[in-house]
Amino acid sequence: MVGSLLAATLAKKGFNVDLYERRPDLRRADIAAGRSINLALSDRGLKALSRIGSDEAMHSIAIPMHSRFLHDVEGNTSLMPYGKEGQYINSISRGDLNKHLMDVAEATGNVKLYFNMPCTDVDLDTATVSFKNKDNGEVVTKQYDRVFGTDGAFSVGRNKMMRTDRFNYSQYYISSGYKELSMPPVPDTKWAIDKNSLHIWPRGNFMLIALPNMDGSFTCTLFMPFEGEVGFDNLKTDEDVIKFFNIYFKDAVPHMSTLLDDWHNNATSSLITVKSDPWHYKDKVLLLGDAAHAIVPFYGQGMNAGFEDVDILSDYIDKYSDWGDMFKAYSTERAPDGHAIAELAIRNYREMSDLVADPHFVKKRALSGKINELFPDQWLPLYSMVTFSHIRYSEALSKGDWQNDVLEQLVAKGISADSSSDEIKTAVLPHLS
Amino acid sequence: MVGSLLAATLAKKGFNVDLYERRPDLRRADIAAGRSINLALSDRGLKALSRIGSDEAMHSIAIPMHSRFLHDVEGNTSLMPYGKEGQYINSISRGDLNKHLMDVAEATGNVKLYFNMPCTDVDLDTATVSFKNKDNGEVVTKQYDRVFGTDGAFSVGRNKMMRTDRFNYSQYYISSGYKELSMPPVPDTKWAIDKNSLHIWPRGNFMLIALPNMDGSFTCTLFMPFEGEVGFDNLKTDEDVIKFFNIYFKDAVPHMSTLLDDWHNNATSSLITVKSDPWHYKDKVLLLGDAAHAIVPFYGQGMNAGFEDVDILSDYIDKYSDWGDMFKAYSTERAPDGHAIAELAIRNYREMSDLVADPHFVKKRALSGKINELFPDQWLPLYSMVTFSHIRYSEALSKGDWQNDVLEQLVAKGISADSSSDEIKTAVLPHLS
Repeated sequence: MVGSLLAATLAKKGFNVDLYERRPDLRRADIAAGRSINLALSDRGLKALSRIGSDEAMHSIAIPMHSRFLHDVEGNTSLMPYGKEGQYINSISRGDLNKHLMDVAEATGNVKLYFNMPCTDVDLDTATVSFKNKDNGEVVTKQYDRVFGTDGAFSVGRNKMMRTDRFNYSQYYISSGYKELSMPPVPDTKWAIDKNSLHIWPRGNFMLIALPNMDGSFTCTLFMPFEGEVGFDNLKTDEDVIKFFNIYFKDAVPHMSTLLDDWHNNATSSLITVKSDPWHYKDKVLLLGDAAHAIVPFYGQGMNAGFEDVDILSDYIDKYSDWGDMFKAYSTERAPDGHAIAELAIRNYREMSDLVADPHFVKKRALSGKINELFPDQWLPLYSMVTFSHIRYSEALSKGDWQNDVLEQLVAKGISADSSSDEIKTAVLPHLS
Repeated sequence: MVGSLLAATLAKKGFNVDLYERRPDLRRADIAAGRSINLALSDRGLKALSRIGSDEAMHSIAIPMHSRFLHDVEGNTSLMPYGKEGQYINSISRGDLNKHLMDVAEATGNVKLYFNMPCTDVDLDTATVSFKNKDNGEVVTKQYDRVFGTDGAFSVGRNKMMRTDRFNYSQYYISSGYKELSMPPVPDTKWAIDKNSLHIWPRGNFMLIALPNMDGSFTCTLFMPFEGEVGFDNLKTDEDVIKFFNIYFKDAVPHMSTLLDDWHNNATSSLITVKSDPWHYKDKVLLLGDAAHAIVPFYGQGMNAGFEDVDILSDYIDKYSDWGDMFKAYSTERAPDGHAIAELAIRNYREMSDLVADPHFVKKRALSGKINELFPDQWLPLYSMVTFSHIRYSEALSKGDWQNDVLEQLVAKGISADSSSDEIKTAVLPHLS
């Protein structure tokens, strides 16, 4: 997706782009677009899409989600809005978005698409790339002016850069994995549960979530430790699975008619975080998206961060005349944001799976919302900074830490969202100076 | 070195070992043994060597260093002992130690050595390794029961493991690099400066150090940022180099008659930290030494940590009957120590280059020594835990952090090494309970 968006963006600036895709053409073959079926598209991604005129088109392939829809273990439910009135995130099909972006890139007339051609090697110094044609087994090698590696968390180009001197790199797997399940459409009425929410069944160190699809179904994802008392390794038989769901997600079970089939057909996958630095090699190679910074999905920012890479790079291209200077400046200035969203995404696992149900967290969250009402220009909640603003991720991370300190101090003093506005103002003002 | 020690250790248990070395046989060819000419051997390394009966042999190829010998910018000097009376670390030639270990391994009769055979590939599931014979270009592929990867910071086996699911890995370069220089022997008297010390010229964020060699020379190493006002990139001409040394290391310059030659002949190299986890692949492959945990040299523990890997693995081999269980237990229990010494080594750059000259640090260090005298069983200074004990590195790290907290609190209360023993005892006791 990031590759298609980048190709379209470069093409609209007049560059000729060859775009290579590992898989067949999604628009012609009936294949899955990747492991996670739908994604949360929000403001950062939309801004990048607006550059190629695609933001409006999203409305026809996305479903707005205004709130978290929380399901407790008893089956009680509650709503927790994502932002202010009118603010929402969008559940979008990975496949539909991919197809749209390929169409837009192709329609520019400057992009040539090649399918079924996984990258096998990159010669960094000459920007020469090899691809293996999966149809006939032939290896094709081509030299370019520049190579943009948007080939994901296991990027071939990044793997080559890793062996160059002073390249910093980390890959870290959290102890939880995930499995996709589904909630089929209900005849006639379609969506079995509220369509315009992201549903969460938070259960401490594990959780089930569900995002709506256009066809009336929901894609559910179970996030859970691999090992441990409640862990994938402990659900061995069909009976184990059924029992587990009936204990922890009993209000979801009636809607999950394909649970056991899904359980067997869908892999249990791991969750990787990749950090790298620098993202460029001289004036020849640049990494974007997951190839530069793969993150866990708990902030719904993986695709948005990759799209924002393209948005920001676009400005750098306009500003610089020398590609080497530009790649270096972009990498130096943007990498801290890649590291920051990786950190925020890992932290949000705890928040989603545990803290949304934790009274202390709920209290701080409500107070933060109240402070935001009283000081809208000086206090934007962390979730809003990340999701509904274009503040740098690194700035959002440090402001969020500062806000949390302030909230802890206020709560310790007995201030809450129920305190009078005057009382809250008096308590907050010294911190804002 | 870790490979030779491991081969000898396994051979003495009755195993047959094939030992492959990338370079020619050091004992027959006149080549350098690697980039750092001498190393600091201390208690952890000696314990591992004692298993193969090699600890005594070290005395004839090593020079004891009892103290840090500090040189300030004015040329004033002072001694800072490493431990208690009689405790010292050893400056040892990498080449001599390598040759000794190969001799010992070969003499067991169970080890076959192959030279000029870099590893090119490892098939993890079958423990099959490929080597390229540098003499004739032939690739040799052999299957083994088990493979031990002791092939250093850029390990081929680890690179294969990196692509397996849930393998955590990081490589991180500090912003400083290093260059080796030398202080030739003085005719007749040999060592130009005190032979039984490790010399340090601490200068804030850069430093020069010197370790004695058996031939009367010293190997000096300049550690300095690559970029910045004082940085390798800013020393462009011979005049720059001479001026720099005359300003910062003026008492060393008269002894460094080959300074400019060394400057040009020796590379400026980077300093990598590698962390990985797990260190094993099923019951087939195990990483030891730098292949598992490459660290920066500032604690003098790189070789010692690798030798201690072998020492600890030896106990696991005796204790377990199943290799898979054993590899898993060893990796799970030892990896935190690899991560801890990596962290300690990075921190010690600041301590060596800056804090040894910082009055606050000197005050805490003196007080720590005094507390150690008063409570020898409950308070061992961090440097001693790492260098002169066999306490787990991870435990040393956490105890060191706790000690630092206590020292900060005592210093804030006006307690120092000059306070009376009673006063110190009274202040420390509550912390020891």
